[in-house]
Amino acid sequence: MLTMESRKQALPLSWVLIFFLAISLCGVKASSGKPQEGPVVEKDQWRKLLVTEFGQITALDIKEDPEKLPYHLQFITLEPNSLFLPVLLHADVVFYVHTGSGKLTWVNDDGTGTIPLRKGDLCSLGEESVFYIQSDLEAERRKLRIYAMFTNTKDNTFNPSIGAYSRINELVKGFDKKIMQAALKVPDDLIDEIINKRNTPAIVHAVSKQRNVVQEPEASFLKNFLGVGSNSNKLEKYNIFDHDPDFRNRYGWSVAVTKRQLKSLKRTNIGFLMVTLARGSTMGPHWNPKATELAVAVEGKGVVRVVCGSNNEDETACQNMRFKVNAGDAFVVQRFHSMAQMSFNDEAFVFLGFSTSAKDNHPQFLSGKGSVLHKLDKHIMATSLGVSDRTVDDLLHSPQDSIIFGRRAWPLEQLGREESFESKKPLIPSQSLEL
Amino acid sequence: MLTMESRKQALPLSWVLIFFLAISLCGVKASSGKPQEGPVVEKDQWRKLLVTEFGQITALDIKEDPEKLPYHLQFITLEPNSLFLPVLLHADVVFYVHTGSGKLTWVNDDGTGTIPLRKGDLCSLGEESVFYIQSDLEAERRKLRIYAMFTNTKDNTFNPSIGAYSRINELVKGFDKKIMQAALKVPDDLIDEIINKRNTPAIVHAVSKQRNVVQEPEASFLKNFLGVGSNSNKLEKYNIFDHDPDFRNRYGWSVAVTKRQLKSLKRTNIGFLMVTLARGSTMGPHWNPKATELAVAVEGKGVVRVVCGSNNEDETACQNMRFKVNAGDAFVVQRFHSMAQMSFNDEAFVFLGFSTSAKDNHPQFLSGKGSVLHKLDKHIMATSLGVSDRTVDDLLHSPQDSIIFGRRAWPLEQLGREESFESKKPLIPSQSLEL
Amino acid sequence: MLTMESRKQALPLSWVLIFFLAISLCGVKASSGKPQEGPVVEKDQWRKLLVTEFGQITALDIKEDPEKLPYHLQFITLEPNSLFLPVLLHADVVFYVHTGSGKLTWVNDDGTGTIPLRKGDLCSLGEESVFYIQSDLEAERRKLRIYAMFTNTKDNTFNPSIGAYSRINELVKGFDKKIMQAALKVPDDLIDEIINKRNTPAIVHAVSKQRNVVQEPEASFLKNFLGVGSNSNKLEKYNIFDHDPDFRNRYGWSVAVTKRQLKSLKRTNIGFLMVTLARGSTMGPHWNPKATELAVAVEGKGVVRVVCGSNNEDETACQNMRFKVNAGDAFVVQRFHSMAQMSFNDEAFVFLGFSTSAKDNHPQFLSGKGSVLHKLDKHIMATSLGVSDRTVDDLLHSPQDSIIFGRRAWPLEQLGREESFESKKPLIPSQSLEL
Repeated sequence: MLTMESRKQALPLSWVLIFFLAISLCGVKASSGKPQEGPVVEKDQWRKLLVTEFGQITALDIKEDPEKLPYHLQFITLEPNSLFLPVLLHADVVFYVHTGSGKLTWVNDDGTGTIPLRKGDLCSLGEESVFYIQSDLEAERRKLRIYAMFTNTKDNTFNPSIGAYSRINELVKGFDKKIMQAALKVPDDLIDEIINKRNTPAIVHAVSKQRNVVQEPEASFLKNFLGVGSNSNKLEKYNIFDHDPDFRNRYGWSVAVTKRQLKSLKRTNIGFLMVTLARGSTMGPHWNPKATELAVAVEGKGVVRVVCGSNNEDETACQNMRFKVNAGDAFVVQRFHSMAQMSFNDEAFVFLGFSTSAKDNHPQFLSGKGSVLHKLDKHIMATSLGVSDRTVDDLLHSPQDSIIFGRRAWPLEQLGREESFESKKPLIPSQSLEL
Repeated sequence: MLTMESRKQALPLSWVLIFFLAISLCGVKASSGKPQEGPVVEKDQWRKLLVTEFGQITALDIKEDPEKLPYHLQFITLEPNSLFLPVLLHADVVFYVHTGSGKLTWVNDDGTGTIPLRKGDLCSLGEESVFYIQSDLEAERRKLRIYAMFTNTKDNTFNPSIGAYSRINELVKGFDKKIMQAALKVPDDLIDEIINKRNTPAIVHAVSKQRNVVQEPEASFLKNFLGVGSNSNKLEKYNIFDHDPDFRNRYGWSVAVTKRQLKSLKRTNIGFLMVTLARGSTMGPHWNPKATELAVAVEGKGVVRVVCGSNNEDETACQNMRFKVNAGDAFVVQRFHSMAQMSFNDEAFVFLGFSTSAKDNHPQFLSGKGSVLHKLDKHIMATSLGVSDRTVDDLLHSPQDSIIFGRRAWPLEQLGREESFESKKPLIPSQSLEL
Repeated sequence: MLTMESRKQALPLSWVLIFFLAISLCGVKASSGKPQEGPVVEKDQWRKLLVTEFGQITALDIKEDPEKLPYHLQFITLEPNSLFLPVLLHADVVFYVHTGSGKLTWVNDDGTGTIPLRKGDLCSLGEESVFYIQSDLEAERRKLRIYAMFTNTKDNTFNPSIGAYSRINELVKGFDKKIMQAALKVPDDLIDEIINKRNTPAIVHAVSKQRNVVQEPEASFLKNFLGVGSNSNKLEKYNIFDHDPDFRNRYGWSVAVTKRQLKSLKRTNIGFLMVTLARGSTMGPHWNPKATELAVAVEGKGVVRVVCGSNNEDETACQNMRFKVNAGDAFVVQRFHSMAQMSFNDEAFVFLGFSTSAKDNHPQFLSGKGSVLHKLDKHIMATSLGVSDRTVDDLLHSPQDSIIFGRRAWPLEQLGREESFESKKPLIPSQSLEL
């Protein structure tokens, strides 16, 4: 069986992502706030939670089905040298750093710590944690862009009526003067100073003094990392560009990160995926038997085909779909629905996403030796397809064994992208599928 | 405590079911597709998914309560020598073979296998399996009729927006020519041959060649069954007529199959039940403390009385109900609601059903030594019923200890049914309840 | 970290509750029966299930969020020497005895037993149990008032369409004459006597004869308690006044009971809490990270402030709230929402409640050494609050370390309440927080 998890190779690809910087979700219009019911949520349908000169936050709620709570996704952008102020998490979260670099500091029952963040990092924080994020002041002035997916599992639920997190300052200032005076027993003028301040935006400029201050928890983190202090005080992370993609050929590459690669994903019950398709390329038909996939197009244009395979006489069944996605659009494909993604119109197509899974999810591809088509009786297959046994023979003896295919003559190197990979090591040496 | 599971006896009853062949769900009208909210769904309210000269499929979605996903039940009928073409399961399923015989072939990660199917068989398949079913060409030209109940548990959920299964041919043909060409790298005319075929119906005539082909996986099954090959490749089944009913007297009999009898039901969290009531007979008042019961009348006519026992001043509470059911009607009784089923109008009444239970469900009967009435303080009972202590004494000293009762003088043998049982062995010798 | 569970002291406080007798939920008007969506349900919005001269039952359904089943709470009042007639439980329940005394008798698979009930008792019964309650004929003619919270967990769900319990007499009488005759095989006149009786109300006068009869199960209980008979036949209970409150100072006290104190709460997944605030006192800002709190005001008047801490630019987010509650009103605060409760208008404020938690819930207080504010970097805090670092210093060096505060000069002893505590032992000797 062909699984995305089992094919690990050795080619960090972070440079490719430099090209993706043009993606912007700016200019979003506040939408109604109701969860979108998919399958596509266009860039301007994301809810705008914050827009300042130092950064912005947009959010998306997509319902997998009408009976379930929606999945909540946030896209946080920090200008260089900016600060996302402390919030208290109400649900477990998984972060993916899409561009830029910075630092994440957290506080929870086990203590406090700071880890550096860079492009390609994946990490997760548990509910009840307080955290804040600071972007680096880089020479390149890259924005720090983070995708945050909030869990929706049996035990750790993002609940829309509770919200994803609360801002620490709002918690303090939300209680009126009398309560704060009673609780803090501090002079009136101190309370007044706090209560009467106008609201601080969630993202602000990080003044230099701050930067030194941040060193303190960082030191404490290092101490913990080195084994001094509590072990639980470490935050595990995984950088997708420090490892080979699961699959790569000249038409594109594909990466999936599950609890096997990053243990802390087990608690959150969320997986991560990223796929790059060169011009004129296609990710072959496949389905996720255990997970629904929530993806965001981050570069180029693509077309997604979703096939339900329903009995076509059942009018209540899911309908096959084809939709076009542009950078910034999100799309959802439910478990067991078959999909194929294609780059569109002479552009490459890059998307990342999160998959929801209580169990190991092994994507099933329709073509290739692992396909279910190979395991079915040939004559039954022929009857099902309404063709001759001979046609099925021809179909199944196709030499092709890949998951990403070129539709036309535009492989990756012609796009000037091949050289952007960080390594020139031979690809997929032992388990090469198609090169 | 009187439990249906604990009373196992030895009288296969499969011949009785020959009488049930007259049941037909033909002629169904397509309904709106919205889940029915019970308690009764009449025969013509089943959704018609397919009708061909070789077979038909009808479906039912019943919501246990408005906040939960519906249960999905399919009734699949194959004419002799017909073929239900391969589908990919999206949820665990439990099959009950109501009439006829045939073969079930499945393919999953563990391999492939074929088992014979005959009347009374119960088996289950897990999600991600591909399966197909072929009916035998019998001298009696009996139809193969199968009830399929899709799971709705925490881990294995039938989700209406995903559907119960997808047809393999629709999966292949749903992707358009360009994708299939890219993925399969086969000549254009081959793709054209597949794509341009009109849709094959889900059930077709099984040509003779096919029958030989089916032998192959069958052989492979036997090999596996004999211990050669993977153990996980076996499919456990249980035939209700190979075992004594849980309860039997002259007025009827009752069978329940749980994970105790068929281990694979544990995963699906579904139980099976079948009850036959002779003319003028009644299954005594009882409730299921752990399971909701989804039943289908398969022969005759019956009346079902459901008693909620609610505080009668609470207008929002469940109301007591009485409804008449004919062969083909489905009905739902929620856990803890008390029910009594009666045959109606000089006809016998036979129903089968599925119960949903995370735990052991021991039906509780109101009468008999195990009844809760016997455990309550006599005077408190009298006060509750508004009668004298003496009346309660009389009530509880009734010699009756049974679960199926004759209302009038029509025991089973007078109906010409007794001789249809396969065995004349004495019934329930050691745990005889009432004969 | 300041937790309500970890501070156990030694001052039974049951006498304080004598003052609470004036609370009455009489005169309720029947409401629509739809679950209330909080945050406050006023006294006259409780649904009236029964009102007789011997007692009454009111009920409340509050939805934590629109996607979940509501929580169901009943308030049962028995006049002295009255009898709540037997019912069959459809869901696990937790009882809290608010005033008066009496006896609880239960019957289940494990047997039967009776325990005395008195003010401050907490106990729980499992679904499938039958139980009845009798109030004592006391010299003081105190009413027996019981709060009953029905579980809403993954495994033990209160389902509105099934109901909380069914009345045993309705179960018997709900089946018509023919069924009962068949099932019980008793003479017609006996059935007639039962069927034709008018409905007995759920609460009746307990005649003297009854009292003797009740002794029997009581004896059987004692036998079991002494180790003769089945161990599972005991019913664990916990009296909150037999133990010190978790926190107490001159401004009030607070008690929480979890599975740590009463093991049987583990199954029901429900905790209990009770808080007394003297005139002019405030329970400091805090939140429950694991549980939603469903509370009922039982004396005086209070004001509850709820702070969501949401990003204030997100119009779909939860809004901060302030609501006034009077005795008899219920209110809900969701997990992670911060709250502060205050007594209002020169009255004390007493509330009790139930918390829903799959895990240990440690309320987090905003002030005090355990506060998250102390763990955050000082400069980040200052930036977040929009004040100087110095102000944060002053704020955090406040000597206050308590959870209940006096807003003005009305500590508990001035209210004449101090002497009502049953013990004069020093409060909270080892972990004293603020005295």
